[in-house]
Amino acid sequence: MISSTPIGAHAAVALVGAGPGDPELLTRRAVRRLRRADVVVYDALVAPQVLALAPAAKRIFVGKRAGRPAVRQEFINALLVRMARRGKRVVRLKGGDPFVFGRGGEEALALAIAGIPFEIVPGVSAAIAAAALAWVPVTHRGLSSAFVVLSGHAEAAYRAVLDGLAPNSATVVVMMGLAHAGQIAEVLVRRGWNPATPVAILLAAATSVSETRTTSLGDLAACGVDAGGRPGTIVIGQVVTVRSLLRRAGATPPREHSLIAAAPVAGSRLAARAEGKRI
Amino acid sequence: MISSTPIGAHAAVALVGAGPGDPELLTRRAVRRLRRADVVVYDALVAPQVLALAPAAKRIFVGKRAGRPAVRQEFINALLVRMARRGKRVVRLKGGDPFVFGRGGEEALALAIAGIPFEIVPGVSAAIAAAALAWVPVTHRGLSSAFVVLSGHAEAAYRAVLDGLAPNSATVVVMMGLAHAGQIAEVLVRRGWNPATPVAILLAAATSVSETRTTSLGDLAACGVDAGGRPGTIVIGQVVTVRSLLRRAGATPPREHSLIAAAPVAGSRLAARAEGKRI
Repeated sequence: MISSTPIGAHAAVALVGAGPGDPELLTRRAVRRLRRADVVVYDALVAPQVLALAPAAKRIFVGKRAGRPAVRQEFINALLVRMARRGKRVVRLKGGDPFVFGRGGEEALALAIAGIPFEIVPGVSAAIAAAALAWVPVTHRGLSSAFVVLSGHAEAAYRAVLDGLAPNSATVVVMMGLAHAGQIAEVLVRRGWNPATPVAILLAAATSVSETRTTSLGDLAACGVDAGGRPGTIVIGQVVTVRSLLRRAGATPPREHSLIAAAPVAGSRLAARAEGKRI
Repeated sequence: MISSTPIGAHAAVALVGAGPGDPELLTRRAVRRLRRADVVVYDALVAPQVLALAPAAKRIFVGKRAGRPAVRQEFINALLVRMARRGKRVVRLKGGDPFVFGRGGEEALALAIAGIPFEIVPGVSAAIAAAALAWVPVTHRGLSSAFVVLSGHAEAAYRAVLDGLAPNSATVVVMMGLAHAGQIAEVLVRRGWNPATPVAILLAAATSVSETRTTSLGDLAACGVDAGGRPGTIVIGQVVTVRSLLRRAGATPPREHSLIAAAPVAGSRLAARAEGKRI
């Protein structure tokens, strides 16, 4: 029995949520862990300003990039274990929350099996914050009292959920779903959802290239989304009208929130190097 | 047209998520907004350590407490508008995220209609973090690629969603759901979910009195939950086995995360006073 992190001691590996992009949406604990890190192992959607909080740390990019071979999860797990065994304080930094489509559970299991003390540092999930920053509340009294979060990558999974979802019974949030947006909308229309149901498409939330588009479920089914390569979150439901009401009342979202640069597209070279040799 | 918050300017009212309880899980922006606040209008689940970050601010409790008349939402809206019109920098502090069962949308609308510049500061949602802190990932490859978040208070809403939810198609997270836990489990078992499906009950997450219990869907349907008055979140799904696997591997969750005091039960006196007179 390993007493993983007794009071006062530190976990060797912290699985840390970096939030939706803006460094101001990091938690205080995330900042503390970054400041004392020897090694930061990070993903594609982590902003340079976040990495800058760990100036002394070795930085290892293990993110996935379209068109390049992904770093294997087994490699990442082994990397975390190896670094921890060398006595390094490791931060495993993930966009959003480590336990929302972040494979945090897999890494935690690998660490536990290797006997490495670890901790989970929850982050602001992009699933909720991307919508909030565009003034779309995932719940709103009288409009929605439930929400569903899906990955656009997992077709079997989203079909299983959406096929049974009664019209307007919940707000639907689709992460990484731009490629499948049309199909997802089709499933809902076939299930009886009104094609006029409003939809918000949140591109590159909490970065300098963020953009919010609104459309309807019917149009989404017909046209899909052209996002110019930016990552995106789709929110489907009557709650999208809150944004419209706010704008109609004359309010405009604060610009200061989107002044940080988007995460760099470069970096996979580093990952390839990291995978090719022992670090 | 009101240009709500031009670059460099500050919103008069910040609707701020306080996260799941632990002050270390506040975002940096939340801390900054608290430090410069003249007035903090806060809810029941906000910890004293969080309020302590705004030592100079007037603190107004408007939370809901079992057995006491709730502060009306219209009163809270009017209070925010009144304070902002007096030139005060107001933080409206909510447990978790302001747009997840937080009525943040209603307050934003009231502010926009009154012409008050405001901003949304997303927080770490208790829906995800309560589970994460107990080592339950809401998604996990091979176990769940979707999750549903419901409020136990909204019976019509959760029935509409759960009646159509195919067995194991998503992790189910029920917030404020202890009173209805048995009923919710019954709906799922009737829908065809295996009564052996694991369940985690997360009581007073991220506080000094937090406790995690595990059970099965069948037992939950039969027995419900006795939580001793603590607020709780219920997570239903195969992802709960990740926690068991981690513990079996010898890992124990870090204690340091739960060393803060629970939010005080007192305070509604303040709210009553606030409602009774102009502030």
